Amino acid sequence: VNGRDVEFIQQSLTGINPADISTLLYEFNAEDSKYVLDLLPSEVKAEIINDLDEDIRERFLKSFEPGEITEIVNHLDSDDAVDILNELSVKEREEVIAGIDNSEKEANILDLLRYEEDVAGGLMAKELIKANLNWTVVQCIEEIRRQAENVQKVYSVYVVDNEGKLLGRVSLKRIILADDKTKISDIYESDIISVETYMSEEEVAQIMSKYDLDAVPVVNVQGKLLGRITIDDVVDVITELAEEERNIMSGIAGDVEEDDSVWDLTKARLPWLIVGVIGGFISAKFIGVFEEELMRITAIAFFIPLIQATGGNVGIQSSSIVVQSLANPSVFGGSMFKRLGKVLLVAIINGLVLSLMVYGFNLLTGGEGNLSIIVSMALFFVVLIASFLGTVTPILLNKVGFNPALASGPFITTTNDLLGLAIYFYIVHLLI
Amino acid sequence: VNGRDVEFIQQSLTGINPADISTLLYEFNAEDSKYVLDLLPSEVKAEIINDLDEDIRERFLKSFEPGEITEIVNHLDSDDAVDILNELSVKEREEVIAGIDNSEKEANILDLLRYEEDVAGGLMAKELIKANLNWTVVQCIEEIRRQAENVQKVYSVYVVDNEGKLLGRVSLKRIILADDKTKISDIYESDIISVETYMSEEEVAQIMSKYDLDAVPVVNVQGKLLGRITIDDVVDVITELAEEERNIMSGIAGDVEEDDSVWDLTKARLPWLIVGVIGGFISAKFIGVFEEELMRITAIAFFIPLIQATGGNVGIQSSSIVVQSLANPSVFGGSMFKRLGKVLLVAIINGLVLSLMVYGFNLLTGGEGNLSIIVSMALFFVVLIASFLGTVTPILLNKVGFNPALASGPFITTTNDLLGLAIYFYIVHLLI
Repeated sequence: VNGRDVEFIQQSLTGINPADISTLLYEFNAEDSKYVLDLLPSEVKAEIINDLDEDIRERFLKSFEPGEITEIVNHLDSDDAVDILNELSVKEREEVIAGIDNSEKEANILDLLRYEEDVAGGLMAKELIKANLNWTVVQCIEEIRRQAENVQKVYSVYVVDNEGKLLGRVSLKRIILADDKTKISDIYESDIISVETYMSEEEVAQIMSKYDLDAVPVVNVQGKLLGRITIDDVVDVITELAEEERNIMSGIAGDVEEDDSVWDLTKARLPWLIVGVIGGFISAKFIGVFEEELMRITAIAFFIPLIQATGGNVGIQSSSIVVQSLANPSVFGGSMFKRLGKVLLVAIINGLVLSLMVYGFNLLTGGEGNLSIIVSMALFFVVLIASFLGTVTPILLNKVGFNPALASGPFITTTNDLLGLAIYFYIVHLLI
Repeated sequence: VNGRDVEFIQQSLTGINPADISTLLYEFNAEDSKYVLDLLPSEVKAEIINDLDEDIRERFLKSFEPGEITEIVNHLDSDDAVDILNELSVKEREEVIAGIDNSEKEANILDLLRYEEDVAGGLMAKELIKANLNWTVVQCIEEIRRQAENVQKVYSVYVVDNEGKLLGRVSLKRIILADDKTKISDIYESDIISVETYMSEEEVAQIMSKYDLDAVPVVNVQGKLLGRITIDDVVDVITELAEEERNIMSGIAGDVEEDDSVWDLTKARLPWLIVGVIGGFISAKFIGVFEEELMRITAIAFFIPLIQATGGNVGIQSSSIVVQSLANPSVFGGSMFKRLGKVLLVAIINGLVLSLMVYGFNLLTGGEGNLSIIVSMALFFVVLIASFLGTVTPILLNKVGFNPALASGPFITTTNDLLGLAIYFYIVHLLI
């Protein structure tokens, strides 16, 4: 690349899959990448740009003129085009849209820009093949021929009535196997699963994976067919949701990656570290209240890490199990009451086993008898309360519209830590 | 169901999607479920059984005779059939296979049973449509007609040579749009992405989502086409991997869900809790070594939670970022040296900010000057070392073949906790 050997680059990239070229570009800076991209045919260029990670693409697009972006957008499906347009400033976006020559595509894009990015309407593409209920197979094949130019991949032919209302689907396989004069109404399947424009991307992902769908049609509240969502978009949604959950669980704010700048990484990490430090400082002040007890029996301090770590571990386990069943609502059928009863039972068993273990350890290593009993008692109650909070917090967070995985994150963990300490020192205070 | 009103059940379940019926069955016990299933047509029954969660299905199948299982297996694609066979005892499996009437299906199933469940060979189905390079479109359509009976969903027609070696693919759309006498060799696409039988399911999922594929052909080392993997199986793999990662991060052993038995839940949770308690107990003994210092200056104990929580948070954040870039190898191109340099820089910034914050807090709330300096120094080093370990551990775990997410789990966290304590008390010991 540095030698700018045009022919060599063109030759070596011919026939390589665009997804591989985009991987290659991660190693170049924006200027070199643009140089390479400009050497490629514009369809390939469009596919590569479409394949890039969002944050890298945003950086790339800064070095493109609106006219060049229009050229890229012309080669993409409406849903992918809209994703790119959403990354531009309002002014650039207007310029790019004004440049689109295909008026149908322009209308499709303007229509899709209305939707939030994280609902079904924002995920769908307008490109699809629909057939009227009253057509014959021959008419239908002709229409496929006509529409197929715009549609990169045909999943199903959707069947609609005269008002455009979705009635069902007919597979390409069925069309091929049918007789020419057969009417669509005789071969279509009427039980079809569709989603509505306002559904969240999580719901769409759940429905598609529950019913093993490769594509799902999107309808408005009147049942009119507006677009389709394909499984590849949903795979991205599932992967992103998993990443988001991991970030929340690890106390990382926002969507950062190892190759982001030092500044971005620090910005994503510091907020929750600060929360933790404030929690730790409150702990310090709290323990300070019991200075007198500590001065009398220093050994009280020895067990602070034990109490805290166990409380934290129990809390995270409990939340994690609840988060999982919130994600698959089918799994848990029982009532809240039954649910908590079970959590309590598991907590009592865990608490008993751990407390007895610690008591045994203390006996064997010659710990002071009175304190040993206190530590084991505190541990038991910490397990109980951390289980309860770990179960209830994600359910409450979910009810008020937050991501339940937050309950496994540092904010709740810090609160749990403080609570564990409070229980321990309260029992110490009572019994010593 | 309890009234055993046969007609009512049959009527109300007719036309309902099998995926919905299987959700319904989660609320019934095995006996009632079997009663309902036996009332349904055997294709629907097969689809429902196929849709159930693995552990629930295993429980269900216990109440089925081998003959009944054979009937179910007869209605399923070879990959799903093999999943069910893998849940049976060897004897039952033999009986079921012996009962399969279609000899091609039997051969397919026997072939698939050879593969491990978590490699491409174990994920693939044998049902696919292949066409010889030298055929015409008419011959190809006839072959599709013939093969389509066994294939539930046609994704692509795979093109092979006379030896069965995979050469490329041709889409149904292209076949429909082509002229009858066109030869396959003129319209097929030769750049096709395939996977080999021994590839892990993670690799298959990565490839399919990287190239946005709905189906991928599976070949053996000689390049011979053996089967295909469809995106719905991979969606399941991605979801399972995310769940597995969450379980590892939260210290839950194995694959449990909220509605598993109290015993299963306890068994999954206790091992890591015990690890944590042992760690806590070692901490207690470790702090005990510094009893003398603690007796002189009790305030040392106040900051134990602060040091530990921060070390833990920093470690988990660091691991999580590395785990993410291990999952998308394209993201990070730099050398190990550059990588660690960056981690160090971020750690120094975070460490400085947090240490200064704590020092400020201590000044404002009248903390003892000498100890304040020690706490801030220890905090700084803990952040540095936890960042380093949090980065290196997942890379090492990955190298030796473990899941790198283990680094965010309780075992490593416990080690980190101990290390934080050691640093703190070492500095205390040196400077007081």
